[in-house]
Amino acid sequence: MSDIFSHGWLGGLFGDPDMARLLSAEYQLAAMIRVEQVYTTALGEVGQIPKDAARAAADAILVAPIDMKALSDAAARDGIPVPDLVRQIKAHAPEGLHHTIHTGMTTQDVVDTSLVLILKDILDVLDSRLADLIAALEKIRAEYGKLPLMGQTWMQAALPITVADRVSTWVTPLKDHQLRLAEMRPRLLRLSLGGPVGTRAQMGEYGDTIATNMACALEIGNPDKAWHTTRAPIAELASWLSLVSGALGKLGQDVALMAQQGIDAIELRGGGASSAMGHKKNPIVAHLLVALARFNAAQVSGVHQALLHEQERSGAAWMLEWMILPQMLQTTGRSLIAAGELLSHVKRIGDR
Amino acid sequence: MSDIFSHGWLGGLFGDPDMARLLSAEYQLAAMIRVEQVYTTALGEVGQIPKDAARAAADAILVAPIDMKALSDAAARDGIPVPDLVRQIKAHAPEGLHHTIHTGMTTQDVVDTSLVLILKDILDVLDSRLADLIAALEKIRAEYGKLPLMGQTWMQAALPITVADRVSTWVTPLKDHQLRLAEMRPRLLRLSLGGPVGTRAQMGEYGDTIATNMACALEIGNPDKAWHTTRAPIAELASWLSLVSGALGKLGQDVALMAQQGIDAIELRGGGASSAMGHKKNPIVAHLLVALARFNAAQVSGVHQALLHEQERSGAAWMLEWMILPQMLQTTGRSLIAAGELLSHVKRIGDR
Amino acid sequence: MSDIFSHGWLGGLFGDPDMARLLSAEYQLAAMIRVEQVYTTALGEVGQIPKDAARAAADAILVAPIDMKALSDAAARDGIPVPDLVRQIKAHAPEGLHHTIHTGMTTQDVVDTSLVLILKDILDVLDSRLADLIAALEKIRAEYGKLPLMGQTWMQAALPITVADRVSTWVTPLKDHQLRLAEMRPRLLRLSLGGPVGTRAQMGEYGDTIATNMACALEIGNPDKAWHTTRAPIAELASWLSLVSGALGKLGQDVALMAQQGIDAIELRGGGASSAMGHKKNPIVAHLLVALARFNAAQVSGVHQALLHEQERSGAAWMLEWMILPQMLQTTGRSLIAAGELLSHVKRIGDR
Amino acid sequence: MSDIFSHGWLGGLFGDPDMARLLSAEYQLAAMIRVEQVYTTALGEVGQIPKDAARAAADAILVAPIDMKALSDAAARDGIPVPDLVRQIKAHAPEGLHHTIHTGMTTQDVVDTSLVLILKDILDVLDSRLADLIAALEKIRAEYGKLPLMGQTWMQAALPITVADRVSTWVTPLKDHQLRLAEMRPRLLRLSLGGPVGTRAQMGEYGDTIATNMACALEIGNPDKAWHTTRAPIAELASWLSLVSGALGKLGQDVALMAQQGIDAIELRGGGASSAMGHKKNPIVAHLLVALARFNAAQVSGVHQALLHEQERSGAAWMLEWMILPQMLQTTGRSLIAAGELLSHVKRIGDR
Repeated sequence: MSDIFSHGWLGGLFGDPDMARLLSAEYQLAAMIRVEQVYTTALGEVGQIPKDAARAAADAILVAPIDMKALSDAAARDGIPVPDLVRQIKAHAPEGLHHTIHTGMTTQDVVDTSLVLILKDILDVLDSRLADLIAALEKIRAEYGKLPLMGQTWMQAALPITVADRVSTWVTPLKDHQLRLAEMRPRLLRLSLGGPVGTRAQMGEYGDTIATNMACALEIGNPDKAWHTTRAPIAELASWLSLVSGALGKLGQDVALMAQQGIDAIELRGGGASSAMGHKKNPIVAHLLVALARFNAAQVSGVHQALLHEQERSGAAWMLEWMILPQMLQTTGRSLIAAGELLSHVKRIGDR
Repeated sequence: MSDIFSHGWLGGLFGDPDMARLLSAEYQLAAMIRVEQVYTTALGEVGQIPKDAARAAADAILVAPIDMKALSDAAARDGIPVPDLVRQIKAHAPEGLHHTIHTGMTTQDVVDTSLVLILKDILDVLDSRLADLIAALEKIRAEYGKLPLMGQTWMQAALPITVADRVSTWVTPLKDHQLRLAEMRPRLLRLSLGGPVGTRAQMGEYGDTIATNMACALEIGNPDKAWHTTRAPIAELASWLSLVSGALGKLGQDVALMAQQGIDAIELRGGGASSAMGHKKNPIVAHLLVALARFNAAQVSGVHQALLHEQERSGAAWMLEWMILPQMLQTTGRSLIAAGELLSHVKRIGDR
Repeated sequence: MSDIFSHGWLGGLFGDPDMARLLSAEYQLAAMIRVEQVYTTALGEVGQIPKDAARAAADAILVAPIDMKALSDAAARDGIPVPDLVRQIKAHAPEGLHHTIHTGMTTQDVVDTSLVLILKDILDVLDSRLADLIAALEKIRAEYGKLPLMGQTWMQAALPITVADRVSTWVTPLKDHQLRLAEMRPRLLRLSLGGPVGTRAQMGEYGDTIATNMACALEIGNPDKAWHTTRAPIAELASWLSLVSGALGKLGQDVALMAQQGIDAIELRGGGASSAMGHKKNPIVAHLLVALARFNAAQVSGVHQALLHEQERSGAAWMLEWMILPQMLQTTGRSLIAAGELLSHVKRIGDR
Repeated sequence: MSDIFSHGWLGGLFGDPDMARLLSAEYQLAAMIRVEQVYTTALGEVGQIPKDAARAAADAILVAPIDMKALSDAAARDGIPVPDLVRQIKAHAPEGLHHTIHTGMTTQDVVDTSLVLILKDILDVLDSRLADLIAALEKIRAEYGKLPLMGQTWMQAALPITVADRVSTWVTPLKDHQLRLAEMRPRLLRLSLGGPVGTRAQMGEYGDTIATNMACALEIGNPDKAWHTTRAPIAELASWLSLVSGALGKLGQDVALMAQQGIDAIELRGGGASSAMGHKKNPIVAHLLVALARFNAAQVSGVHQALLHEQERSGAAWMLEWMILPQMLQTTGRSLIAAGELLSHVKRIGDR
């Protein structure tokens, strides 16, 4: 019940299996290991450690069996999983290689960069869903666009419009969101590498080159600094996620209003059963879109509060992001799928 | 990652096993079955159905094997689990008893009343934790209370106070929260029984008596109405949960400030390891309390948005509660445990 | 435009003249002066200063002309108005009385206690408005209660109810809010007197007696401590304000839905003109109630964030309250008036 | 008290005179009149009305004396000022010109486009302040950058960094915000012209040409549609405003932490007086920055809730924007000025 996205039965309504996989601890662990491996490889490439040692250590990092339970116990103590992750990796690597593993990096480098790797995959999924949804809306517009519809302002009959007019207000913002996503990507999908206090000083003279090599290997951007405490890209992402779910919330709200008896501006296939009223066909998915939008609109505030990331690393502000961001990703992911479902249920749109 | 409370490793830091159990789908399902059973029993007691049939049906309800996967598939379609739950129960009951099961009730009666049953157990846990925490704080006050501490206003040294002065500001609000909880309980822990449109009309002349019997059996309050759309008690609960976590967030923030080198007004046992700095002993739990408090402070807005529960039942506003309330319960539950942990780590408090 | 409550033209829609007066700088200044005066009087009563000096100083405090512009300039520098207020008061009092003015108190004592004095008046107004609104709803219920109305769940026609059924869901929560207000009053309407670090230590042995006398004179509660940093009562008030505006937002949302052409479950007198469509009669006030409710639901989060009031006095958290609380009071005040206006516009309620 | 930005004395701390002017009802009225005038001119240019009539009407629009009180009374009734504004304008124009005024437009065209005109001026101010602040930070970095500073993670001493390292984390996000602003401008600063239901149908065949001419005259963008119900650019602006104030909140939080006795990593000129403690020099402006940031972080949620703008025009969602957006503009405007003030008070930065 506490996690609605994977809840025993509500998970069927709220869940998004692709998002669940991309946001799973397993997927995240793989991303953290990849960051450790690429770091060690880069240490070898710049000559800070011998190439052979780097190769051997990078292999050892990849194959180290990780005990998730131990990781969890350690995170309860350390607040973060990386100290124990490094300990576990080292426990399975020859002692002679220990200094080639993680040395010079810090937990936040690993956690934030691995988040970026995950976000890269998630944004691809969301982008592709946006495109699919736009196509589905264009199809609706093509099929029903010329039909008349009573325009409603202040929830009052105003003047006749066409179905195309209303559908346009659903599809136009989604196209803008594609552009916003394209602009946001390079600000967000970037390596964070700074070492303990974000300065790269603990990596010696090679810090910037290590960063270049890592960013290249991970196919992400390479800013000249770690972004440990400059969290605007995370808040920008949160806002974008809420813009998308908000646009779909408007669609859901409109459909719920159109589906009212007496208005009858849309007819939907299926619909939710009532335990008490056999005749009811509730437009569940339309309401779901509204709920998801209002949820994200509340969450975006929390992520903006987390902008006050004190000094070289905030515990509290960082944790606050961990609590909220994954839920917003899941919510927007589900919104996009749910909106597609809703459109696929349309039997008729426009005034009778 | 999307559910931080049960996450692979962050669950170690954020999770609260008691809350997880009380908020599990299994616990919730048992509560819903209990509501169905008590309803059927009450139908028998008022004579709306024969006593024997009521007894047989109540037994059948209790033992019906429920297929969670089917429930989830149905919830995806219906938005709610109850139509399929009733279907599954009936499938395992003699057909002659079908009319004695759920007839006259509605999904929201079952979902909201079962929520109340769970909240009753949860509030007992939270109340008991509050008492424990107050005791722990009183112990700290007794042990260190007379020691001097520099009072800080606007984060600037002001005038000397004692440890007791500051500890008092931590403990006093918790006692007030006990009182608030006591006042809130009767408003919140109440049967919701109204039938499809909340009027009890579908229960015939016995609606109020059925409600009385059910409330008695379930040991909860019995308002004269269903509270399908009057969600103030839920929002009041959300506010209370945030008041509690907020008070503990102040405690956490104070401890984080006191633990700074150069201030040194507290010394803590343990502390989180850094992956890069062997000397670090991060006051993880203090920061956790701040994060939990700010999380709940963001969530409370979402629950208040859900007060706009339109007409006889809102889909969207109700779903929004489902998304947020369990997380707030989990967060406050964890805050109370974490604050206790933090106090147990105190080695010294007061200026050196 | 930035203050919607007093805006050139939007003030006509959003403003609440009573609240504006009770929340004006002038009213607040009078309350602060009253606190200073009562404090000095109490110093005399306990014998900390001679009675004559106390009387003379109390008189001087009351008549001191205060230069608001100078106060504003000083607040820009000090963050708070009281140091300059005290300076201005002293400038108009004989030098021999200066030590009898404010000595031992702190700014926060004055600001918070004067806030309480204002809140006391405001809560009386809100309470009385609640009673009026309940009466107006009861009148509507008496007049139209038996008329049929189609019950709507998930914004879909469900089963017939009566107008009384729906009106009950509007009026019931308001009665609960009256009770909540009664419970909240003694927690909120209390003296805050602690001196610079909240301990009353700077008032010598008489601190508690001074507090008793002040509370008695000001007719407010007398806790054994200042509540400088324990802000739960403020957050509880914010939640209550949002509960009230939220209940009225549900009423407004329902009316907006009922007023739709095709639904026609309510007929309203008047209504807003459109600049483009002569036939439009927009149910402005219904929409206003929704907007006010959602506004307060967003604000409540900010006040809960301000619970993290660090150490003996937080600058930032306190300022955050100043920014939000007055707006919430104004919003709820306006909601109550607007709901009464909406009800007075009802020409018919119930299905045609 | 209810409007902190113009409050009797708190206005000295929170107010921003430039923003107050740009957000005044007078400035907004002038912008609305300009939109009406440019519309009438465009009607003449496309030949929908005679050029002479257009010129005469445009002149009459500009000089019509507007009675603000009457506007306010009307807004209380209509929810919007434009019907009465048009009535007042017409009352001062020859009757033969009445059909050339406003005909075909709708209130929302006027209100939203005039908002854009104001935002254009405001964004210029904010952009220029951002540049000034970046310059001030670069100056601090140049002057103190090489000095040592103890890096702090989890509010614990970590490893030494330089002042330049920390100042970089203050300045870098501001440069990103300049870029975000540049990207956002064309999405936001656009004509909204659609007529009563947003379709331009009431403007006859010339709608698109009228829009082109108006956009050209007003020097703003010209989308092919009105954006009556697609409010993403407003929410994007709100997020940006909060990103900026959030970055400055981090700066304020850092300075407040650095200014603690025992840490002493910054020395500030001036500082706020205490009414009780002569030695106090509170870093008021640092705390103000934190409060402003947390305020905007709460508000951003409300603007995102307003994305659910139903059908062809929402009353409630639109009103919600009116309540929040001007405050966010004022808050960010003040943040930028306050951050500059704070930097100008720096006497020394870096560890002693």
